[in-house]
Amino acid sequence: MTDAFKQAALDYHANPIPGKLSVELTKPTATGRDLALAYSPGVAEPVREIARDGENVYRYTGKGNLVAVISDGSAILGLGNLGPMASKPVMEGKGVLFKRFAGINSVDVEVNAESPQAFIDTVARIADTWGGINLEDIKAPECFEIEKALIEQCNIPVFHDDQHGTAIVTAAGMLNALDIAGKSIEDVKIVCMGAGAAAIACMRLLVACGASQDKLVMLDRRGVIHKSREGINAYKAEFALDTDMRTLDDAIDGADVFVGLSGPGLLSADQVKKMAADPVIFACTNPDPEIHPAVAREVRPDVIMATGRSDFPNQVNNVLGFPFIFRGALDVRATRINEAMKVAAVHALKDLARDPVPQEVLDAYECDEMHFGREYIIPTPVDIRLLDRVSSAVAQAAVESGVARKPYPAHYPLKNVNDVYG
Amino acid sequence: MTDAFKQAALDYHANPIPGKLSVELTKPTATGRDLALAYSPGVAEPVREIARDGENVYRYTGKGNLVAVISDGSAILGLGNLGPMASKPVMEGKGVLFKRFAGINSVDVEVNAESPQAFIDTVARIADTWGGINLEDIKAPECFEIEKALIEQCNIPVFHDDQHGTAIVTAAGMLNALDIAGKSIEDVKIVCMGAGAAAIACMRLLVACGASQDKLVMLDRRGVIHKSREGINAYKAEFALDTDMRTLDDAIDGADVFVGLSGPGLLSADQVKKMAADPVIFACTNPDPEIHPAVAREVRPDVIMATGRSDFPNQVNNVLGFPFIFRGALDVRATRINEAMKVAAVHALKDLARDPVPQEVLDAYECDEMHFGREYIIPTPVDIRLLDRVSSAVAQAAVESGVARKPYPAHYPLKNVNDVYG
Repeated sequence: MTDAFKQAALDYHANPIPGKLSVELTKPTATGRDLALAYSPGVAEPVREIARDGENVYRYTGKGNLVAVISDGSAILGLGNLGPMASKPVMEGKGVLFKRFAGINSVDVEVNAESPQAFIDTVARIADTWGGINLEDIKAPECFEIEKALIEQCNIPVFHDDQHGTAIVTAAGMLNALDIAGKSIEDVKIVCMGAGAAAIACMRLLVACGASQDKLVMLDRRGVIHKSREGINAYKAEFALDTDMRTLDDAIDGADVFVGLSGPGLLSADQVKKMAADPVIFACTNPDPEIHPAVAREVRPDVIMATGRSDFPNQVNNVLGFPFIFRGALDVRATRINEAMKVAAVHALKDLARDPVPQEVLDAYECDEMHFGREYIIPTPVDIRLLDRVSSAVAQAAVESGVARKPYPAHYPLKNVNDVYG
Repeated sequence: MTDAFKQAALDYHANPIPGKLSVELTKPTATGRDLALAYSPGVAEPVREIARDGENVYRYTGKGNLVAVISDGSAILGLGNLGPMASKPVMEGKGVLFKRFAGINSVDVEVNAESPQAFIDTVARIADTWGGINLEDIKAPECFEIEKALIEQCNIPVFHDDQHGTAIVTAAGMLNALDIAGKSIEDVKIVCMGAGAAAIACMRLLVACGASQDKLVMLDRRGVIHKSREGINAYKAEFALDTDMRTLDDAIDGADVFVGLSGPGLLSADQVKKMAADPVIFACTNPDPEIHPAVAREVRPDVIMATGRSDFPNQVNNVLGFPFIFRGALDVRATRINEAMKVAAVHALKDLARDPVPQEVLDAYECDEMHFGREYIIPTPVDIRLLDRVSSAVAQAAVESGVARKPYPAHYPLKNVNDVYG
């Protein structure tokens, strides 16, 4: 980021009013009668109806289109544990994306909890307020325990986007990249640099999509995670191999796939040279990836490369996932976001990249043509088709897998974010 | 409420979309650059600034103009303990009023807590999310313990509106009513029917405004609260008299003031007959007051009467208070709403009723004239002057009493709810 851009970001957040979101009225409030309907005495009627049947809360309040973005600020972006308050601009930013891309109302909640259990207890007690919960920027391994407990205790979707959003978009791009490379996911050797929340979720989902766990090497700061290493947590242990490999140099030899969710510059040109033909490199650390695409391409012109950045091709961007995953889940009143829904989102994203690119997308990128291929394996965030494709796939999967409490929505397909949801 | 009005209230809440509030974007999000400023990578800058100095959260996020309305649904309106979910329309309605009258963004949180301590712990852990907390519809006596603990634990205003909002508006009307009756607050005999959160807060504030505690008789469902009664909680005990009075019939004899925060029809015409000259009756139970104004007036043409209803003169309506009290508190970044601020609000409301009524108010009530007097002791909710009068008085009192963390706002006086706050 340039200093000018940094200043622009501060100005954007501060002026003319602080923050990025406001709460607005959706019903008339001009007259005394309006206010008598909105509050006392009229509001007693929806209260009674909800007391009579809890499901009526979706009919008379905003719950059904309302998602909380909840964090403890323990793993903010790539910045680390800066505490709940420092995370607030990120959580509000997530709210901006929910609204902008999927018409979902979102509120942030920053939790100052002394333990994972305190975090769980706190969120569980207030969870009914919303139609869904997006957990965000919570560090591993606590995030796994927290998400698992909240999914069990809540009757609404609880989704840690740093894990599953990242995993879904990564998996969609990976399936397309491997297809272009002419490789089958079952056969490829995968190296995952990083063993945090996103890395573990990505690898779990790739395995669910067919990757062979015995060909998957995960590394953390101390090197390869292998069975004779001591002191690794249960989540990392899930990926421990019985292997002699100890370093990235060992692991990268002959690898088909490198997934980086770790730190800037951790993959060298020499290491890329040692990868198999048509190597697939997802260097997702922001803003500085594990290796710059130009450096990788220089040593390996056959590389298929994705990053987390919008200024390179093939951006692995969570905004391709979470707004629409929640849209689909909310619209069928799903009780959770299960594996079937995540896999449905993967395939919807994967398939969309194979369709002809609409003119609006070309215009947005000031580009004459974009075709499915090495430079375009994932849809772009400006693609309005994402809204319907991903949301409807997720909604359908929820219905088919038995976690939906409403039928597939009659108002689908979704044409724009202002379609009425309810 | 007629059946037609009840149906209109349900329709209002349900159509065309459920609920009454939405979350909207306040900054541009059209371009990739906009989104890069709002979220990754730009959002890292405000994050860093807040990590460096916590006060920057007010500069770069919506916290400073954001109030949470929090309830456990244990005392919803006059409907009782219907649980957290049934309270959601009320909490969203409060949000409507915050926005409509004071430009404050508000979110609701419904808490499903197994004990007052669990409620306290939960709210304390998430309190920093907002600039202030409006507790709502929490039953007595738990509400006292909850509010006290949260005020101690939070560095933002925590205000139980059922207590203090009601008390402030009641006290303002009462001071004016007594003035019209030619009586001094120190001398009057007050009968308070009801001993819940609102009643206790009202009586505490009247005492703070000069009422004599030994001339104040409080009654609950079992009758007069007196020193030889057993099993009364500490909050009621504060008002226990050493007296032979046992019933409302005993207490009302010669009373100057009746305040009803109890139940419909609990004050009879015969009892009103026994009150002192120029009796002041605040029959605040909604929708059916302790006595209908016409019934009271028939037996006592000299009565000065207020109710909670908008279709009678002198409505004791909390909306005259809480939006502006929070507006003033937020605008000077007060750490709490203390007694000085509450008393300042009382006097601002009291004084405003004595000023000439503007044409807009006359128009709204389709009325040729309104003057300070028996039929007009409290301002009306449509009076736009409330915004500046009450907010500025509260802000000033916060500054003078040392709980403000910002100076008196340069952008005051407030002319409309869209004035920029920050």
